[in-house]
Amino acid sequence: MTMAKFGRLIGASLGPGDPDLITIKAYKALKSEAIWSYPIRKQGAKSFALQIALNAGFQLPETNIPLIFPMTHDPEKLASYWHKAAEAVLVPLSAGLDVVFLVEGDASTYSTFGHLVRTVQEKEPSIKTETIAGVSSFNAAAAISGEMLVEVEETMAIVPAGYGVKLLEKLMVDFDTLVLLKVKPLLDDIIELAEKYDMVSQCSFIEKAGTNEEIVVKDIRTLKGKTVNYLSLIIIHNPHRQRVEIIRGCKKKCNDSGQPQGIAPT
Amino acid sequence: MTMAKFGRLIGASLGPGDPDLITIKAYKALKSEAIWSYPIRKQGAKSFALQIALNAGFQLPETNIPLIFPMTHDPEKLASYWHKAAEAVLVPLSAGLDVVFLVEGDASTYSTFGHLVRTVQEKEPSIKTETIAGVSSFNAAAAISGEMLVEVEETMAIVPAGYGVKLLEKLMVDFDTLVLLKVKPLLDDIIELAEKYDMVSQCSFIEKAGTNEEIVVKDIRTLKGKTVNYLSLIIIHNPHRQRVEIIRGCKKKCNDSGQPQGIAPT
Repeated sequence: MTMAKFGRLIGASLGPGDPDLITIKAYKALKSEAIWSYPIRKQGAKSFALQIALNAGFQLPETNIPLIFPMTHDPEKLASYWHKAAEAVLVPLSAGLDVVFLVEGDASTYSTFGHLVRTVQEKEPSIKTETIAGVSSFNAAAAISGEMLVEVEETMAIVPAGYGVKLLEKLMVDFDTLVLLKVKPLLDDIIELAEKYDMVSQCSFIEKAGTNEEIVVKDIRTLKGKTVNYLSLIIIHNPHRQRVEIIRGCKKKCNDSGQPQGIAPT
Repeated sequence: MTMAKFGRLIGASLGPGDPDLITIKAYKALKSEAIWSYPIRKQGAKSFALQIALNAGFQLPETNIPLIFPMTHDPEKLASYWHKAAEAVLVPLSAGLDVVFLVEGDASTYSTFGHLVRTVQEKEPSIKTETIAGVSSFNAAAAISGEMLVEVEETMAIVPAGYGVKLLEKLMVDFDTLVLLKVKPLLDDIIELAEKYDMVSQCSFIEKAGTNEEIVVKDIRTLKGKTVNYLSLIIIHNPHRQRVEIIRGCKKKCNDSGQPQGIAPT
């Protein structure tokens, strides 16, 4: 009996769009013999992840595997597409070939790579996977907007804006930095909140960070009533948050009775 | 009257330690004519950021500027060191030379680059700065631990563990993913919390992610009573969090009366 020797499934994070934000490790994975695989929304659609690689000067190899991950939240439909995707990459993997899955941004952060890995490993548990970490859109957003995300001992929450105004209001007050993703449908409400808490000057709006279409808006009030791109986020710093003294090193033990203000346990 | 033409101050994120996790953009900055500058804790100390560049095969240029950022929280002492650091990089900047400041991890995330930029621009407001985004330690941690940080529509909080057990307990319950940084002094308390909420299997401990000394521990209970490195973090996923339906696209408007459970406004 021979043991099948499978290829590896590699998730290569290509960063937010600027081909120069690809890491050397991901670049090497693209240059390797591994079969390219990449996500598309539907048959014939463009792949943003693939486009980053092409913008970096790579040619699409003749043998390549587009995988359809449709824009749906229907669990049954999704499961059927993940199943098909897993079957498609299992062909070269079973032949002992490595497959590199191209990922926009970072493969561990809001990426379809997790689903792909899970579905492939359900079918073939012995398949080895590797994730190549990359630059997230919010890291790129802070960099192009010329601001810090978090400084020493600050706290940060990263949240899709769609959770609604009530939650956003609470998080704005509780965290030093709040990163709101996909702000499009709630933009006017977020501007209103920022005005209410006198935090307009602490907000930056960044659209398509790390691409050549990136836009930075420092006064978010100018966006009132406007329609923005789906790939847009807002970074909010909270200058008002009261802090308690943090426990440093091993010198102090946790002060269980200490009530951190702002992010106080309730 | 001639206008002085200053050089640019560039923050080059070099990632968490693996020289292959340097981006092409940062690599190009290191290869450019820019003067190297890098943080050290005290006179004669090693620079982790510099070491990443050396591990990538670069030679330390003869002219280079180590900047002392001491391990203190005394605001007066810190201000004096930032002042000295700014003065040091202003010498080449004023001579029209670019300065590249080497940063471990991502320059916008818990980095000293923000302080340096602010202090330099207070002295010379017309100095242009550029930040090259990079891979954060927590992105690298998730990648080497083979797990997702966040999946579609999940929420994440990133917090130094030193804020204490009460706060951590609340955040563990409130967010889909909690990244606890610098867990060393509170490790046993965190393990206890994970046991209390039946979340031990959802925790990963990662020390020195992205370096060649990286350690991943999947059963954090095995760390009870042990002393770990300062550069260690824990990623906690919350399988119990109840979600409300998120507002998608522009189809629905925010449901102000909706009470998101788990991360409910209080």
